[in-house]
Amino acid sequence: MTSLLSLLDREPAVATAGIDLIAAAIENQGIDVAAADWRPPLAGTAEALADLAADDHAVAANAVALDRMLGVRPKLVDIARAGDVISTLEPGTLLHAGPPIAWADCSGPLRGALAGALLYEGLASSPDAAFAMGAQIHLSPCHDHQAVGPMAGVISPSMPIAVVADDASGRTAYATLNEGLGKVLRYGAYGPEVMERLRWMEEVLAPTLRAALHSVGPIDLQVLIAQALQMGDDGHNRNRAATSLFLRHIGAGLLEATSPSQGERTQVFRFIDGNDHFMLNLVMAAAKLHVDAATDVAGSSLVTAMARNGTEFGVRLSGTGPRWFTAPAPVVDGLYLGAYTAEDANPDIGDSAITETIGLGGFAMAAAPAIVGFVGGSAMAAVRRTLEMYEITSTEHPVYRIPILESRGTPTGIDAALVARTGIAPQINTGIAGKEPGVGMVGAGLVEAPLACFVQGVRALAGP
Amino acid sequence: MTSLLSLLDREPAVATAGIDLIAAAIENQGIDVAAADWRPPLAGTAEALADLAADDHAVAANAVALDRMLGVRPKLVDIARAGDVISTLEPGTLLHAGPPIAWADCSGPLRGALAGALLYEGLASSPDAAFAMGAQIHLSPCHDHQAVGPMAGVISPSMPIAVVADDASGRTAYATLNEGLGKVLRYGAYGPEVMERLRWMEEVLAPTLRAALHSVGPIDLQVLIAQALQMGDDGHNRNRAATSLFLRHIGAGLLEATSPSQGERTQVFRFIDGNDHFMLNLVMAAAKLHVDAATDVAGSSLVTAMARNGTEFGVRLSGTGPRWFTAPAPVVDGLYLGAYTAEDANPDIGDSAITETIGLGGFAMAAAPAIVGFVGGSAMAAVRRTLEMYEITSTEHPVYRIPILESRGTPTGIDAALVARTGIAPQINTGIAGKEPGVGMVGAGLVEAPLACFVQGVRALAGP
Repeated sequence: MTSLLSLLDREPAVATAGIDLIAAAIENQGIDVAAADWRPPLAGTAEALADLAADDHAVAANAVALDRMLGVRPKLVDIARAGDVISTLEPGTLLHAGPPIAWADCSGPLRGALAGALLYEGLASSPDAAFAMGAQIHLSPCHDHQAVGPMAGVISPSMPIAVVADDASGRTAYATLNEGLGKVLRYGAYGPEVMERLRWMEEVLAPTLRAALHSVGPIDLQVLIAQALQMGDDGHNRNRAATSLFLRHIGAGLLEATSPSQGERTQVFRFIDGNDHFMLNLVMAAAKLHVDAATDVAGSSLVTAMARNGTEFGVRLSGTGPRWFTAPAPVVDGLYLGAYTAEDANPDIGDSAITETIGLGGFAMAAAPAIVGFVGGSAMAAVRRTLEMYEITSTEHPVYRIPILESRGTPTGIDAALVARTGIAPQINTGIAGKEPGVGMVGAGLVEAPLACFVQGVRALAGP
Repeated sequence: MTSLLSLLDREPAVATAGIDLIAAAIENQGIDVAAADWRPPLAGTAEALADLAADDHAVAANAVALDRMLGVRPKLVDIARAGDVISTLEPGTLLHAGPPIAWADCSGPLRGALAGALLYEGLASSPDAAFAMGAQIHLSPCHDHQAVGPMAGVISPSMPIAVVADDASGRTAYATLNEGLGKVLRYGAYGPEVMERLRWMEEVLAPTLRAALHSVGPIDLQVLIAQALQMGDDGHNRNRAATSLFLRHIGAGLLEATSPSQGERTQVFRFIDGNDHFMLNLVMAAAKLHVDAATDVAGSSLVTAMARNGTEFGVRLSGTGPRWFTAPAPVVDGLYLGAYTAEDANPDIGDSAITETIGLGGFAMAAAPAIVGFVGGSAMAAVRRTLEMYEITSTEHPVYRIPILESRGTPTGIDAALVARTGIAPQINTGIAGKEPGVGMVGAGLVEAPLACFVQGVRALAGP
């Protein structure tokens, strides 16, 4: 007791952990505080985390899931008609981004895109008729059909899609082809110019790309993405380098193909050249191949999907398979185009967060400092975001490397248990859709995955 | 006197400037040293620098020269035959990189390239005959003919060259087309495969590029280079992004041209796609246009050329016009290909340091951290090199910006007076040629411009 009382004779030395408010209050009294970088786990996860930590099987399961995720080698092998290759895409069904949703709960841009798909498929003869039909169509998440789509992510049977495959496992994944910016279906626009472009994509872009691809052979997307990260891309919101490299690959095929016509092949080259986001969809298909390989490893807390339908944000874990853990989709913090403001913004939407799920996008922003001109913030903040993501990921990507961090691999393989333990949310950088159907893109910015999804996921994984 | 003596009663406080050895010796005695970041000017320049600093005209002259340098807008407008557009390239003359040199003083790679040009032009029937003719040919620096060439930089009349022009002033500048890596003329190789490629460049590459360029119209090189810096290029040793963007521009032209044949247009696309350095020569021609606009401003210490002929390194200042200030060419510190070592290296060679002269290359390395895999060093060292170059340059480039430095403009416009005052040498990153003729490229690395060139230049500028 004497030694304890003697503490009062000296200047106090204070160590704090967890709550910044306490440290600040003590510092305000002129006392030195050593703050430890520790926070309590997210509310409601302490017991589940303790269970998982005590379970040797969970550690091994994560290693297996991660190994499977990194073990596939995505190559672009074909351009096909969605209805021909996605065997589960039945007539009367439309696929969409994010977790499952009913028509009544769909946001404006998703309704707009679904209505547009009905018009495009000839199932509705006017926008009014299409919106009136909404409640009768069968909606299903792209993610349940080896597919992904940016923003609304709507896939209908006649749409051309990219086929990405892994030679060794025979796995495949699919994504739509990118329409460009402005008034496009994926942002919920459905006017005549949207229909015209979709039809051109079906009738000219798809067969032309297919011919060129068959001429040059499969394109190794992993090599292409790795190079693009050395050229200032993040693989989600900045794809100028990847699109340039894709054009270098496919350009030779477009030049040497004998059909379609020279005019159509030139049109296709110019279309891709006019859209620096063209590669986004192909990166997404590659990412989908990675996460599908990692799914269903019992006990693993590896995140295998983060996806938004414009109303809800959904997360899947490897160990809980197809089950979605959802929370309301947050609003994106970013830069707006023209006169648009946050008032015009729909909540977060799209399957594109699949890129973050494999260590790209918001996780690779340090590789893409020029992106801050598009999404806001500073280059140093972009670097800090990447550095923070190492706290919630399982490994450093063996192939996707960041030159400015001395070629450190990107933070890869989100562990839901680490998210719950640290309270650090996965960072996503993404486009912003207008909330009214038909408006299209209104901006781009940054958003954090809702922590509630990870709380549910970790609790479900730990079991009852 | 009493107060001075009292200094001895206390612990000494020491401030040092200029000579690290003194600071280190005092620190070794356990005494705190405050070292000021100051160095004396380079030996022999103090008086000249004082004269220049006292001369209001010199300050105004530098502003004028810089303004002219940044005022041109280089566009690629044509591909032409050197002998047809460089009116000063007389028959019997060969142009070469760097300051003037006599055959007897030429290094191996320059001799090899000159011999190769004689073979290519049909002026010699065998390598032995070509080397025997060397002393009879008239040699003249590219720089005196509005032209630049990387490495040996040899230009002969039949070679196709890029024509870069500024609409407003009507100025033009020229550079050869890049042959690719390996055994190539510019590295001093002259074997049959070199001749075959040069002939293909003349007969297929040049007319095909010309047709494609006429189809798409002039290419704004400043916009292209600015984008490439946002994509990890430095504009000298890393040109993967610029070459990709160039292919995006020219690819549409190659696709829509009706002649030459489809096979030749495909060959040209594949040739450029196979050579990430293709854009280097076009960046150099753009840079030459900038520096030529800035030349001959009386009193200006702005550097208008840094160029090496493989034996000597030469520098020109705006205020001293065409006069060269030379010193022995240094050896490059870098990474070697295969089994080559520094023993195999020729001293520094080529006009490519024109890129550093306008704020690219070694000055823009912070934009290109992935380059350290090619030239050695760390990403952080690359950033530090760029930061140091702000000490010897007049401005930050208004268009060429570095994303990771929060889009700060590259350090641009080397002021020889600042080099003399600080003793900081311009940093160049460059290729390394084998010293024996015929060997070709042996590595790539970093080199400092010799300070002696700047000492001479500043003294000459200040006058007798």
